[in-house]
Amino acid sequence: MGNADDHMYPSSNDYNFHATSANQRVAIPPPQPFVKSLKNTLKETFFPDDPLRQFKNQPPKKRFILGLQYVFPIFEWGPRYTLDFFKSDLIAGITIASLAIPQGISYAKLANLPPILGLYSSFVPPLIYAIMGSSRDLAVGTVAVGSLLTGTMLSKVVNANEDPKLYLHLAFTATFFAGLFEASLGIFRLGFIVDFLSHATIVGFMGGAATVVCLQQLKGILGLDHFTHETDIISVMTSVFTQIHEWKWESAVLGCVFLFYLLLARFFSKRKPKLFWISAMAPLTSVILGSILVYLTHAEKHGVPVIGHLKRGINPASIMDLNFNSQYLPTTIKTGIVTGIIALAEGIAVGRSFAMFKNYHIDGNKEMIAFGMMNIAGSCTSCYLTAGPFSRSAVNFNAGCKTAVSNIVMAIAVMITLLVLTPLFHYTPLVVLSSIIIAAMLGLIDYEAAIHLWHVDKFDFLVCMSAFVGVVFANIEIGLILAIGLSIMRVLLFVARPRTVVLGNIPDTKVYRNIDHYTNTNNVPGVLILEIEAPIYFANSSYLRERIARWIDDEEDRIKSSGETSLQYVILDMGAVGNIDTSGISMLDEVKKVVDRRGLKLVLANPGAEVMKKMNKSKLLETIGQEWIFLTVGEAVGACNYMLHTCKPKMGSGESEKYSNNV
Amino acid sequence: MGNADDHMYPSSNDYNFHATSANQRVAIPPPQPFVKSLKNTLKETFFPDDPLRQFKNQPPKKRFILGLQYVFPIFEWGPRYTLDFFKSDLIAGITIASLAIPQGISYAKLANLPPILGLYSSFVPPLIYAIMGSSRDLAVGTVAVGSLLTGTMLSKVVNANEDPKLYLHLAFTATFFAGLFEASLGIFRLGFIVDFLSHATIVGFMGGAATVVCLQQLKGILGLDHFTHETDIISVMTSVFTQIHEWKWESAVLGCVFLFYLLLARFFSKRKPKLFWISAMAPLTSVILGSILVYLTHAEKHGVPVIGHLKRGINPASIMDLNFNSQYLPTTIKTGIVTGIIALAEGIAVGRSFAMFKNYHIDGNKEMIAFGMMNIAGSCTSCYLTAGPFSRSAVNFNAGCKTAVSNIVMAIAVMITLLVLTPLFHYTPLVVLSSIIIAAMLGLIDYEAAIHLWHVDKFDFLVCMSAFVGVVFANIEIGLILAIGLSIMRVLLFVARPRTVVLGNIPDTKVYRNIDHYTNTNNVPGVLILEIEAPIYFANSSYLRERIARWIDDEEDRIKSSGETSLQYVILDMGAVGNIDTSGISMLDEVKKVVDRRGLKLVLANPGAEVMKKMNKSKLLETIGQEWIFLTVGEAVGACNYMLHTCKPKMGSGESEKYSNNV
Repeated sequence: MGNADDHMYPSSNDYNFHATSANQRVAIPPPQPFVKSLKNTLKETFFPDDPLRQFKNQPPKKRFILGLQYVFPIFEWGPRYTLDFFKSDLIAGITIASLAIPQGISYAKLANLPPILGLYSSFVPPLIYAIMGSSRDLAVGTVAVGSLLTGTMLSKVVNANEDPKLYLHLAFTATFFAGLFEASLGIFRLGFIVDFLSHATIVGFMGGAATVVCLQQLKGILGLDHFTHETDIISVMTSVFTQIHEWKWESAVLGCVFLFYLLLARFFSKRKPKLFWISAMAPLTSVILGSILVYLTHAEKHGVPVIGHLKRGINPASIMDLNFNSQYLPTTIKTGIVTGIIALAEGIAVGRSFAMFKNYHIDGNKEMIAFGMMNIAGSCTSCYLTAGPFSRSAVNFNAGCKTAVSNIVMAIAVMITLLVLTPLFHYTPLVVLSSIIIAAMLGLIDYEAAIHLWHVDKFDFLVCMSAFVGVVFANIEIGLILAIGLSIMRVLLFVARPRTVVLGNIPDTKVYRNIDHYTNTNNVPGVLILEIEAPIYFANSSYLRERIARWIDDEEDRIKSSGETSLQYVILDMGAVGNIDTSGISMLDEVKKVVDRRGLKLVLANPGAEVMKKMNKSKLLETIGQEWIFLTVGEAVGACNYMLHTCKPKMGSGESEKYSNNV
Repeated sequence: MGNADDHMYPSSNDYNFHATSANQRVAIPPPQPFVKSLKNTLKETFFPDDPLRQFKNQPPKKRFILGLQYVFPIFEWGPRYTLDFFKSDLIAGITIASLAIPQGISYAKLANLPPILGLYSSFVPPLIYAIMGSSRDLAVGTVAVGSLLTGTMLSKVVNANEDPKLYLHLAFTATFFAGLFEASLGIFRLGFIVDFLSHATIVGFMGGAATVVCLQQLKGILGLDHFTHETDIISVMTSVFTQIHEWKWESAVLGCVFLFYLLLARFFSKRKPKLFWISAMAPLTSVILGSILVYLTHAEKHGVPVIGHLKRGINPASIMDLNFNSQYLPTTIKTGIVTGIIALAEGIAVGRSFAMFKNYHIDGNKEMIAFGMMNIAGSCTSCYLTAGPFSRSAVNFNAGCKTAVSNIVMAIAVMITLLVLTPLFHYTPLVVLSSIIIAAMLGLIDYEAAIHLWHVDKFDFLVCMSAFVGVVFANIEIGLILAIGLSIMRVLLFVARPRTVVLGNIPDTKVYRNIDHYTNTNNVPGVLILEIEAPIYFANSSYLRERIARWIDDEEDRIKSSGETSLQYVILDMGAVGNIDTSGISMLDEVKKVVDRRGLKLVLANPGAEVMKKMNKSKLLETIGQEWIFLTVGEAVGACNYMLHTCKPKMGSGESEKYSNNV
């Protein structure tokens, strides 16, 4: 494939580079041994935050201590603990305990589990987290969405009413697997998987899940006996409105009153952030008021369902209850993985937000190991799935927590409740728990975030809405699959359809920018400048090849109709092509052939290190010719202009075919 | 978040822009209505080659004709057909027919189907393709890998020996679903899905599949009666070497002789490309020689298995045989989809290669519809899965085909064979068919491509080898899943771990490039210049935020030890950030906060249209300040230098905290 015009016209080597401000040739980067670049890539992929940087240049004894502090962060901040910290943590701990107790009992019912499990789960897991976790603000506890998912997924194989013991054991086993999965993600540093759930997806999914949870509470609020097993809005509304005669007005009124009280408390706290404790105490006061009301009116004898007897004493061991029977194994593993992922996504997001705000750093993978251990230990001590719910952590933060000791305080408060105070909940009406859940869930429906998405990026909004609709109108699993699928598809589409733009010259400069962005740009006669704005991989190389061919077609059509100088040079600005693989190199080779056949010349500008390296190894560099690769678009255009004005300015189409390859 | 230094020091607005060559502000791009940008995105995603451009500005009658030509390309090239073309196509057609007949019979046995099906499948499908296909060089026929896959996947539910009728009907049904799937991909323009199988993956997968097919032929060559049902190399080798006493030396010798003959013919043809017909005729001559040999020696009475009776007559209709029984539906659908995708991947790649070489264009989605129709029609006329195998298309190309009429000629030749010549194959020994298959498969093992991958991109080589090993040591489905999974994971990793580099100044220029690429760069005192070399999405925003923080840490460590001017400015070169979503905007917001807290100033250079648009909508633009966003890195450095030299040069860490936010 000879360059015929090399013989007829001056070559670009004659171009006087001293005329420009840079006579720098585009360099082939210095070779790097494969092992070193593999090491670097593995390091960037799995250890981007370089967690071992502090271990450098330390004596072995110090390394042991640092290692211990790394695995159990409590040994790091523990010695620095002061009385001031303890005062703040005490207040925060008691505040979140007052939230943990009613919420724990409520969420356990969401999962069709005995209410006492909610209290157990606020005792052991927070202690584990305080030892192993990195966040100073995260408050550990059960989560509504995880509880609902556990309930729906396990109910497919076991009916909680008919076989409560088996159901309980399966719940512990699912929690064990959730913990195992979370810890594995952390140990193998696969934490970046969680990053693939975009914020838009999580907003939509959580909003939908919160809506579903609220709809489920209609059973408790309206006092219905028979209710659909499905979770989608159509089934629930059908179930509710076909049983209008079954509605119990007493439950409904009581539920609405308490719900109103809780929402009022939250509204107050939002108005005056200093009074956050009003909203934090509201659930516990509702429970107390409700209990008193039922006790005084003996309403439990009139059919108002109450919690009833709660066993005293702390968590019994449940390690012998784990059920690895192969009949249920697929279900428990699946439940564990799904609930584990959702718990992680929320917990990591919460931990990161507060760390960002308070300006400390948390290691995502370490957090996952902490969550994992928390759940593994919990499954052996009669707890079910726990995580770091945002609402509770926000209360913890507002209450002024300083370290994870607030979790220890909460755990101790819950322990005291378990040992002494359980009889107090005997008369608590279940409808109060439903109100507490609804009030908490309404906080999870983040419509402000959705509106923000609509304004900034409508595609993100579409993804958010799809996840929401999937959860509300189908079921949670379909919604989750839709959410993850949309996220991954968006990533793949980003890669598969990268942007290509035409560049024009900003007047009186050597700067070339996107003609759609800067409307005052001029085009350069006889030269088409394209910029490829993404790395070139197998997933987009076919598309790019066709797109570049189409840009050239469009430009030639435009020139034909406007009568300008015919096109002779095609400059590709490679500045944004951060990486390229073998398919990408083939694509450039094919573009060179296509461009040659049309009698044009291909020029490259500003190729990065990776691109130069691979072009060199694959001999594409020789094919294009190193003299046609320039450091900047400005220099490339300069060389082309020089050639255009020194040589015959117009090459008719007949002549160009003479020098093309015989096909 | 006030900028305290705005009051104390001159602002960057005072910077004399006239001193630089451009006083261009970075513009916010003109707003584009959402519908228009949605339309553009959909167009780029699904119609990147703008197939309807030819329809613009045409009267309705012409549009109808163009539409007909679009769906049935034969109406486009048919009227231009000449006698010269026919001469070339006749020769090519006869050549590929001589290949189609023995290969068709052989591959049908790979799929455990009656040999006559191989001939049926070279009759109807090529006719359909000639009407609807766009490639001028593709030769249609059955493929070895697809046949093997059909055989292994259907054999899981039905034993071909015990219930041949059901097996046959399921094969037709699987072909129907394959055609339906292929046509749907084409109609919904989801063809880009095939692009996600990288070339490296396909080389590895095809090489592994070819190896597996060769291993399967050991049964025929060695004349073994009992053979493993597994396809992996360990099982096959065990099966072969534990039955050494069962080897039939006659079969083995005959097989090796014919194999040697075929390989010799191919070697010859490679040496002298003009003698390609030697290698093309070799399989047919082997069949004829083998038949003569058996006939003369009456070997079929001595236990040499032969083809036996082949029914005369063309394809019987099989539309009533399609079995949609729900018991087998999952298997047939799965077989259809898997074989369909593999057939597509090879066929599209083949079509594109020849189109590239001969400089015409084929529409990938249209080709998929053609393949789909071919298989749907085939399933109703006693054919099984067909595609465009590379070996046959290469012979077609070398034989000088001009249009798809070569496929019509081949179909007619096969029809003549079916009507008249089937008795000729009565005495063909099966061992000859095995040799033909092995010879064809050895051509599919593209070790040269693998070596090229090793040299250019070792990660691509790793992907290739993983696919190969997966197929050879586990089974084809696991190998395929591994291949697709690795491809997608590589894409996701590309996105999740984008490159960030430090830029330095190329001496005597205003150009800033990667310091690892250009070793003569100087750094700018007090300024850290980072370039983010990929679009910023949710999948990589957390990573990027941590990585930028780490770059700043590293730079401050380096400065501390070297005693240079302390860091004051962090410039982010956004030139390669082609796109950004809401998570990316949040990430930039968080980076601004982190940088502010450390007493540094964040400066942006060369943000693209998308980035400016989204920063404007999300108010990030106000937060950063439009005066700190520059068109080029050079201008940004100029402004920073101006500030550094006009104001107090060193801001100690104590002073910077005075002006940071109270945390």
